[in-house]
Amino acid sequence: MIDAENWFTEVEEKNGAAMSLRLRRRLHAETSAYQRLEVYETDGFGNLLVLDGCIMLTSRDNFIYHEMMVHPALFSHPRPRRVLIIGGGDCGCLREVLRHDSVEHAEQVDIDERVTRLSEQFFPELCESNSDPRAHLHFEDGVRRVEEAAAGSYDVIIIDSTDPVGQAARLFSAPFYRACYQALGDEGVLVAQSESPLYHQQLMASMVGNLNAAGFAAAAPLLFPQCTYPSGWWSATLARRAGAAREFREADAQTIRGTRYYNADIHRAAFATPQFLRAGG
Amino acid sequence: MIDAENWFTEVEEKNGAAMSLRLRRRLHAETSAYQRLEVYETDGFGNLLVLDGCIMLTSRDNFIYHEMMVHPALFSHPRPRRVLIIGGGDCGCLREVLRHDSVEHAEQVDIDERVTRLSEQFFPELCESNSDPRAHLHFEDGVRRVEEAAAGSYDVIIIDSTDPVGQAARLFSAPFYRACYQALGDEGVLVAQSESPLYHQQLMASMVGNLNAAGFAAAAPLLFPQCTYPSGWWSATLARRAGAAREFREADAQTIRGTRYYNADIHRAAFATPQFLRAGG
Repeated sequence: MIDAENWFTEVEEKNGAAMSLRLRRRLHAETSAYQRLEVYETDGFGNLLVLDGCIMLTSRDNFIYHEMMVHPALFSHPRPRRVLIIGGGDCGCLREVLRHDSVEHAEQVDIDERVTRLSEQFFPELCESNSDPRAHLHFEDGVRRVEEAAAGSYDVIIIDSTDPVGQAARLFSAPFYRACYQALGDEGVLVAQSESPLYHQQLMASMVGNLNAAGFAAAAPLLFPQCTYPSGWWSATLARRAGAAREFREADAQTIRGTRYYNADIHRAAFATPQFLRAGG
Repeated sequence: MIDAENWFTEVEEKNGAAMSLRLRRRLHAETSAYQRLEVYETDGFGNLLVLDGCIMLTSRDNFIYHEMMVHPALFSHPRPRRVLIIGGGDCGCLREVLRHDSVEHAEQVDIDERVTRLSEQFFPELCESNSDPRAHLHFEDGVRRVEEAAAGSYDVIIIDSTDPVGQAARLFSAPFYRACYQALGDEGVLVAQSESPLYHQQLMASMVGNLNAAGFAAAAPLLFPQCTYPSGWWSATLARRAGAAREFREADAQTIRGTRYYNADIHRAAFATPQFLRAGG
């Protein structure tokens, strides 16, 4: 009944699990210089963006991921003015960053311009802040931008990457985290998508280790549901140059507008660590 | 690639989504007086129990569901001695209930004895406390047992039901909640599985309404990931005859042993309400 014509299916081979969404039609397909891009209209999840066969986002449930990639990090910094997004070509993180009035300059650096152009066409709600004068879109290698940045250039770095394979594997490495550490100001905060707590426990532990080794004073994962990602459960790992991972501007967080998942209670709750993640690692 | 021979697939028709697990072999299939029961050995999730085509549990991820159905409720009662489980024939809730030393009498009332017999055979770890002298297994109609119970018979009632269709629909109704209210002591706590926050928001809201109408002083959902249930995100709704939904014996919760998901931090975190559930409902 799950036929390839009427359903898009992503198989997680190692865990023998698959997630499928029923399709109405294919809206677009192309191969850019970097990856295969497909866009579908689904029956129950709005539009669907697929990169190299992996579900990147749907209209219906991307709000959880994007809000959790942005607001905990920005409310963990005392006054975030300069924000760098590595990856994030769909512009969903950028939109959330620009909800913060303190932000003066937000750079999005995705190597593949086609992701952004397709997002403008098929996910216009994610791109509604792209013409904000504070927004700066660059289509180039994010690693190089971080390596070449002057020390202390950014208050927050958001690593909205694909899975740690191919080009994106560099974004999970200790040398890259050291470059981020240098590019951040004294109170700088880094946040990176860090895969599934159920499937990628070792990767999550190694990221915390790499972040600590890079000099960050604290690093801890934030957990949240994400229906259309493998296992339906996802994480972002937050690291700070100074201070405790769980400290944040709670009173300010309570005033945020426009979010559909994030609030101050969710911020605190996302740091709660299930017993199996405490014990092992 | 998701063929019916090598994969078990559950389709969520209304939302146009499906979840599949890769199979090694079918271990058992039968039709009882109440339902179709199937057991499979999967590649990545251990054994899989399917009732009427719906995934009930896998060896790998049932711990989250069972711990969240039991420990928040038992730590919300000052001293739970008498516990009633409606449904729960796989015995996973029963095992968690019996981790609590205060419990003197735990009744499990599932209408279908075959669920328990298959669980003993294919999920023996869930049944490891079935011979505890405090455990009492009954195979009969749970609604009738509650209706016929003397007032104040139980400290905690756990409703570990299937989806609200067919026979199980009664377990989500206001009359049944009134019967539970009567059967509970003055400080009684009820908890019921309440489906997916992403897919069943209206059902969750109506359950809170029905529980309040039945006389409970407070009712609130607990949210948790559940990889193999529709949307990968699930809920249990907790109601109390007296006191606030979020109060619990936190110091006692910190001493619990043997859990893999639940701890006191997770208890607090599970009550955090995403913005979209606050606004609507």
